[in-house]
Amino acid sequence: MLGRLNHVAIAVPDLGAAAATYRDTLGARVTAPQALPEHGVTVVFIDLGNTKVELLEPLGEASPIAAFLEKNPSGGMHHICYEVDDILAARDRLKASGARVLGDGTPKIGAHGKPVLFLHPKDFSGTLVELEQS
Amino acid sequence: MLGRLNHVAIAVPDLGAAAATYRDTLGARVTAPQALPEHGVTVVFIDLGNTKVELLEPLGEASPIAAFLEKNPSGGMHHICYEVDDILAARDRLKASGARVLGDGTPKIGAHGKPVLFLHPKDFSGTLVELEQS
Repeated sequence: MLGRLNHVAIAVPDLGAAAATYRDTLGARVTAPQALPEHGVTVVFIDLGNTKVELLEPLGEASPIAAFLEKNPSGGMHHICYEVDDILAARDRLKASGARVLGDGTPKIGAHGKPVLFLHPKDFSGTLVELEQS
Repeated sequence: MLGRLNHVAIAVPDLGAAAATYRDTLGARVTAPQALPEHGVTVVFIDLGNTKVELLEPLGEASPIAAFLEKNPSGGMHHICYEVDDILAARDRLKASGARVLGDGTPKIGAHGKPVLFLHPKDFSGTLVELEQS
């Protein structure tokens, strides 16, 4: 069921500073910032060849990463996103196994324009898992 | 400078349970556990096609992930490992930029038999970064 690692998301308090660190200090390819108001974040993508890292900065009043940054003011790894072929089949298999799918279980359209679901960190070794239909 | 994402490491309190979740609930390819006493961990690898996740359980008295698991008893993402062509050149560039390389700056042989260095999380958005020579 589990496909490729689509991305690792790192929440950061200052996107300009974090992007500069990846670009100038680590010598990575970093895209220009994109505001995604419907997701409550501004994002830059770091292209690593085989996959990508996304740096996320809160945008707006109700950002889904605001609470995480309150607990982790320097930032930190926020979630990991795996690809699946069929997100509804994945959801049904997960629910049957007792894993908790966040929200009402209906996939939402994620930052890449594809259906996504999030899984409860307590069921996955303390790690927030995103599934994205590939 | 920055190459591929080599792996994401997730520290877990119970490797058998975490491996079973990835294998049975998420349907991933998971290797048999390998004890790495010189690194203070037992590890399983999750093959994602384009990269891998490593699940780490403490091994022995002075495991480098013991303190992390005390703070995060359910587990969590512990570090992210990027590949670099030349680890000594990478180290020198990082030090010149003011980034902190952990330890004495001499690469150690990592879990894959290649030279590695770790970078201070405070300099990289709260994320512990491992560099591995590719």
